[in-house]
Parts: sequence; C-alpha cells; structure tokens
Amino acid sequence: MILITGASSGLGAALAKRYADQGEQVMISGRNQARLAGVAQASTNLHPLAADLCDEQGVATLLDTLATMSGGAALDTVIHCAGSGYFGPIAEQQADEIHKLMQNNVTSSILLVRELVKRYQDTPLHLVVVMSTAAQQPKAGESTYCAAKWAVRGFIESVRLELKGKPMKIIAVYPGGMDTGFWPSSGKSLDTSSFMSADEAAEMLQGALKATAHGHIADITIARG
Amino acid sequence: MILITGASSGLGAALAKRYADQGEQVMISGRNQARLAGVAQASTNLHPLAADLCDEQGVATLLDTLATMSGGAALDTVIHCAGSGYFGPIAEQQADEIHKLMQNNVTSSILLVRELVKRYQDTPLHLVVVMSTAAQQPKAGESTYCAAKWAVRGFIESVRLELKGKPMKIIAVYPGGMDTGFWPSSGKSLDTSSFMSADEAAEMLQGALKATAHGHIADITIARG
Amino acid sequence: MILITGASSGLGAALAKRYADQGEQVMISGRNQARLAGVAQASTNLHPLAADLCDEQGVATLLDTLATMSGGAALDTVIHCAGSGYFGPIAEQQADEIHKLMQNNVTSSILLVRELVKRYQDTPLHLVVVMSTAAQQPKAGESTYCAAKWAVRGFIESVRLELKGKPMKIIAVYPGGMDTGFWPSSGKSLDTSSFMSADEAAEMLQGALKATAHGHIADITIARG
Amino acid sequence: MILITGASSGLGAALAKRYADQGEQVMISGRNQARLAGVAQASTNLHPLAADLCDEQGVATLLDTLATMSGGAALDTVIHCAGSGYFGPIAEQQADEIHKLMQNNVTSSILLVRELVKRYQDTPLHLVVVMSTAAQQPKAGESTYCAAKWAVRGFIESVRLELKGKPMKIIAVYPGGMDTGFWPSSGKSLDTSSFMSADEAAEMLQGALKATAHGHIADITIARG
Repeated sequence: MILITGASSGLGAALAKRYADQGEQVMISGRNQARLAGVAQASTNLHPLAADLCDEQGVATLLDTLATMSGGAALDTVIHCAGSGYFGPIAEQQADEIHKLMQNNVTSSILLVRELVKRYQDTPLHLVVVMSTAAQQPKAGESTYCAAKWAVRGFIESVRLELKGKPMKIIAVYPGGMDTGFWPSSGKSLDTSSFMSADEAAEMLQGALKATAHGHIADITIARG
Repeated sequence: MILITGASSGLGAALAKRYADQGEQVMISGRNQARLAGVAQASTNLHPLAADLCDEQGVATLLDTLATMSGGAALDTVIHCAGSGYFGPIAEQQADEIHKLMQNNVTSSILLVRELVKRYQDTPLHLVVVMSTAAQQPKAGESTYCAAKWAVRGFIESVRLELKGKPMKIIAVYPGGMDTGFWPSSGKSLDTSSFMSADEAAEMLQGALKATAHGHIADITIARG
Repeated sequence: MILITGASSGLGAALAKRYADQGEQVMISGRNQARLAGVAQASTNLHPLAADLCDEQGVATLLDTLATMSGGAALDTVIHCAGSGYFGPIAEQQADEIHKLMQNNVTSSILLVRELVKRYQDTPLHLVVVMSTAAQQPKAGESTYCAAKWAVRGFIESVRLELKGKPMKIIAVYPGGMDTGFWPSSGKSLDTSSFMSADEAAEMLQGALKATAHGHIADITIARG
Repeated sequence: MILITGASSGLGAALAKRYADQGEQVMISGRNQARLAGVAQASTNLHPLAADLCDEQGVATLLDTLATMSGGAALDTVIHCAGSGYFGPIAEQQADEIHKLMQNNVTSSILLVRELVKRYQDTPLHLVVVMSTAAQQPKAGESTYCAAKWAVRGFIESVRLELKGKPMKIIAVYPGGMDTGFWPSSGKSLDTSSFMSADEAAEMLQGALKATAHGHIADITIARG
C-alpha cells in the first residue's frame, strides 16, 4: 500500500494515477476534499483521505485511518509531495504568507516524518520526500522558499543518521520547476511552457525509485531540459 | 552604532560587553527585560531594548526606537545572535517545542533580515547572522535544530544574491558548541567543560569581522579545539 | 549506441552486460585488453575497445574508432565508470600511488569529458559520470580519494553550466561501496559481504537513467542498505 | 616561526611582508628564486627558501632546511598560498595546461600537507590552506580550476577528520578574486580594478586567523565588495 501526500494536484496527483493504473492501492491525502475526490475518480484504486499535516493530531488520525483501511496490508511506500510556494524579493514578502509557507513545507514535513518514524522505523518503509532544487542552492527572489526547502533537507538528512541500520529508508527527491498549478497559486508569474509536466516528472521519479536486496536509490535530482 | 540581538546571555552578551568596552554604543536586544538590564549594568555604553523578533511589529518597533535613540548616528553593524536550541531523537520531540524552535530561529531571522533589508539595503550596513555548525551538516539527535539552522542559511544566502551590488552585506557565522546557558535550556545534557566559552568565541569573532575598501570577511566558522 | 568506460570489471561490466542483454550495441572500454575480451564474450552486442583515457590521444582515438564502428548509429549514451581507489591515513600514502589515483580518476574524466563536449555538445548525448559518495563528503582514511572525486564533481558541475541550453546532458551518479574487485586492488581490506553487488547497482542505475521530452534525472545517489 | 608558500607574489607576498613588519620570522617559499629574493628585500625578517612543492623530495628538503634554520624555534604557522590558475571553456583547454594546473594546485597541496602531518601532527601547528571561492561552487569557464580547488577542499576536510583530537589544526581560506598578477598569468583577461588588492586580503586574513584556548577560526571566506 502506498500513501501519497499533496495528491490533490501536480506531481502527487500524477504519481497517484500512475501507481493506481499499475494496480497499486493508493491512499491519497490533501487538504482540499473536493479536489481529492476529483483525483480519486480516475481509479477505484485511489482512496482519498483528507488531512491537515500541519496539525499533529491530523497526522496521527491520517495514519490511524490508513492502518484501519489497509486491511492488514503493509504500508511500504510514502511519497510526501505536500507543499506550497511563495516568492518575491524579501523586502516585498508578507509575514503571514511566510508563516503559511513554513507551515505548509516545514511543519508538515517534520510532523509527518516524526509520526512515521515513531510507527514504522523498524519496518522496511520507503519514505520519499519530494523537495525542490531550491533545497540545493540559494536563489534570488526565493529566499523564504529556499529557507523552507533547506530546512526539510537538513531535517531529513539528520533523521537518516538516526535511522542508520534500520529497515526504514528516506529517499530525497529534488525536482526542478514543473508546469503545474503550483506557480499561479504561488504568486509568481512565469512562462512554464518549456517546463516538464507533472506527469513527466512522475514517470521519471517512478522509474528512479529502485531498491535491491542491499541497496537503494537514495537521492534523485530531476532537472528540466 | 551596533545592534546585537540575543544579547541577554551567551555569545550576544559577551560581544556586547567587548564592543562597549572599546567605546562603541551598543543597543542590546532580547525578550527578557530583567536579564537585558543585568547585562546593561556592565557599561554605560550598553542600551537595553526589549523586543520580540518573532513578531513583525516587534521588529519594526525595535528599529524605530533604535533610529530615535541613535541621535543620528548611523547603524553600521547588526549582530543577530538570537536563537534557541532543542534536541533529541525525532521520535521523542514535542510538536510545541518544535514550533517554538522554528519561531525563535527561523521566523525571527526572516522578520529581522526582511526589515533591515527594507530600511538599510542602500547603506553600508554589515549584518552578521550567527548560526551554528548545525547549519553546515546533518546531525543525529539534532534534526529539527538542523532544520532551523539550514533554513536560516538557505535564507541568507538567497538574500545575499538579492543584495548583489548593494552596500549592505550579510556575514554568516557558524560557531561550534560553546559552554553557555544554551545547553541547560535546550534540554540536552552534556559535558561542555572543554567547549570554548562565549567570551572566547566573542574574541575570535570580533577579530574576524574585518572589511576593507574592496572586500570583507563573508563567512566564518569557529571550531572547538 | 552506448559507450561504457571502465567496463572490464565491476559496475561498468555489469551495466554493459545488462544493456547488451536488452539488445543495445555496447562499446566497452578499458585498459586491460584481456579482461575486456573476457567481458565481451558474454554477448555479441559487446564490442571491446581498449584505450588509455589518461592520454589525450588515447581518448581521441577511442572516439574516432567508435565513430567508424558505429556505421552511422548515433552515440546516445556514454557511461563513464573508469576509476580506481587508493586509501589509508594521509601520513602513510605514497606519492606515486597518489599520482596514479589522480590520473585514473581526474585526468581521465577531464580528458574524456573535454573530448565529448568538443564533438557532441550539440547532440542529445547523455553523459553519465559515475563517481562515489566520497564526492559528497569528506572521509577519514580516504583523503586523496575524496580529493579525486570532489575534483570530478566540481569539474562536471562546472561543465554543466557551460552546456546550459545545449542538448548534451551530464548525469552525475554517486554510488556507495559495492562488493567488487575494486577493494582488493585499492589496498583497503574490509568486509564487503553486506555491500550491494555490482549487478544490483547496475540494475538500480539503469532504472534511474530516465529522461522525458522536457526533463531528465540529473543526479543519483545509490546507497547501501 | 611562520612558513608561507607561494610567497613570491600576490597574497603570499603581502602576508609575508605584514608578518615580517610585525617582527615575525617568516620563511618564504616559491619556485622562482629571483622573485623570492625580491620579496625578501623588504625585511630582514624574510627568509627565502626556493622549493618545488610538486616534488616530494622538494617538500621534504624544504621542511628539513626550515628545521635547521629555525635554531630551535617552533614552526607554529604554515600559510599555503601556492597555486596557479587556468581558465576557459572546457572545449578550448589544453591537456598540458590542465596537467600543470593539477600539479600546481592539487599535487603540491597533497604533498605539503602529507609531509606536515607526518612531522607536526602532534604539535600545535596551524596550517592555513588558501584556496578560492571556486572551491565552494561550480563556475562556467573555470571547470578545471574548480576541479583543482574542489580537490584540495575535499582533501583537507578529510585530513581534518584524521587529525580530530590532535593539536595540529587546518584552517581553510576561500578568497574571492583579487587584483594580482594571478590573472594575466592565467590567460584570463578581465577588469580587476574593483577587486580587492592582495594587501587588503592579507589584512583581513591576518585579522581573522584567531585562536583561543578552546577554539579557533576554522573556515574563512573573503568576498569582494
């Protein structure tokens, strides 16, 4: 069984559909129940579970429900795509938008990863954390977005050290810009016509999420072009 | 004129005293008015200004007051030492403590830097941001602390790109562990007797904060040992 | 058509066999003609081409021959696996072994990449450069090996900037330790029984080397465990 | 007693003069005997010692001579400035120039550091290794120069791990571009009139090379502007 967060649009939705098409049971999570339901219509293998990951109780309830719904099937993969963007020169950014950005990207990731480690650290769970190339370098006009993404990277690289020798693994994914609904909602207007589509990124990511008996793909950067 | 945040203890207090002893006018900021007043007793050159940097109005008021008090003297240096620690395996960390950690380190830094950029980007202000070696690498048992410090690093490295060609400069400081009140308050118990004292770190940092007509020391790591 | 360097053993040989089994025409290169011939016996799709990549004429001749042999088929992928290891505390390392290490890893990579850029920068060539996790962090006992691998990483990340907007792409691969003949020949004795085999790494890498119309997997870390 | 390599010009020469002016005994090393002698004329505290650091015997002889000349005075600081530049798009770079670049920057650093570790690892020697901001990021048009500088960085960061707990310390210095004879000799023509002078960089670096009983400044980036 697979859990995908941030699955109501973009890369999360594209991945969910691909895995469902291959016969996987996929729990899809997001905050917007209507949009989640829309995505779920694509396949009977898609199961919507609305949740607010910025709230620790929301995370616990999500994982409780998932355990109930699974009918005993093990959770083997979590793909954490949830997140949002906010851009602009720092002098023009708004405090409340910065707060939301940190909640949506950093708090949600910390609370989800914490709860998964508590429950699954001794099982062979593959936790895939989707960040951005903004986690790998500073960018003018993206200072708080870089802050959020660097935070998640520093966090999961540290948790990895804590999981050393355990069967649970964290896979880090850094996609470049995609042509999704992410941009309009972030307030940044740019021509994304040459960007890869969410489905292209999903196709590449799915191919790259490989593991064998003694190893696994641990870090993946997906570049435009 | 110099502004030092987080000046009620540790490295901030040690730096404040050193600069005051050299005849500089030093505004010292912190949340705890009583402790700030205690530090200020060391010299008539120390001027306490209580402020909550996690609140955007608190930051604005601090800088307004400082402009008023300066009597026209230019603010040439800001040393941002404010911050707090929180440690432990991720499975044992508490959501409310994680929230406080992010507020005290990330939100405060973003709001302060944002306001300083707005007001001072066209002046030769040196903004010194004190982080930690936890901003440079992942550490087991420090996952959320690393998250916070990586966030600040990604943030200021991005803002630097926005300030390119401007007279305002950001200096990044990464100190290793110091023997200060930081540890007891962070909940981490360890033997810090071989750590450098706050005053040793202050002495080294003060020596390293150098600039000439065409250059400046931009990044400084202070190591133990 | 695919060219694989360092294909006389280890990951290079394993990749060569996998691609040949899938019907690809694979040119395999290495310095040891006898071992190359041994690898080539596995499939009629494997074509040995002995070459010394540390010599600029050797590189040019290899690519000339390859162009001749291809019968007009385009070279679409180069997987550069050639390299060697040398380990130990720096105080005990020998100057001539350090020289060989730099030649085998840095010089060969620079000369090969330079020649490929000259000839193929305007074609959709995917150049996969296999390094090591030693390119991503410092390691005690591996100082000169890290030097060599960091060099290659700094080099290809710079060349990528020069290729921006061109169809030729560089893919960076960082595998952790594998259970191959690499270790005995490096002079380092360690128990590699829990390491991934070369064939496991080859299987994962092959799966991860994905590209679509507007994007490609650009960086891949393959971890043990 | 201080040893400065690459002291016949640029930052090395500027540092040598500053330390000599302060009364320090400074051994200055370089390959060009005539230029070294010219630098030495500035002060009776400057002692020229021609040496080729790319040759292991040259390094050993330099350190033997230095031990003899010191009259028992301990070597407390080594500032390794030796190095050279070579630039241009990779497709236009020449193999023999690349070889020289690697020798002058990587081989020399490895051989010098190796010999210093052998002889001085149990003494409180401060070994300052001057690299470049090209060691911290990739740069178009500087691919092999970045290769060389990344190599030195990966090397010294690894050796630091081997020296953990020892009194010998390695300090890493990353200066941005300076207005020195480096550029004309590197084949790169650019307007360096707004760059910092070697003497400015020397002044800042000297101020930043601080240590106290329990700590030391370990990494220093010197930026233009």
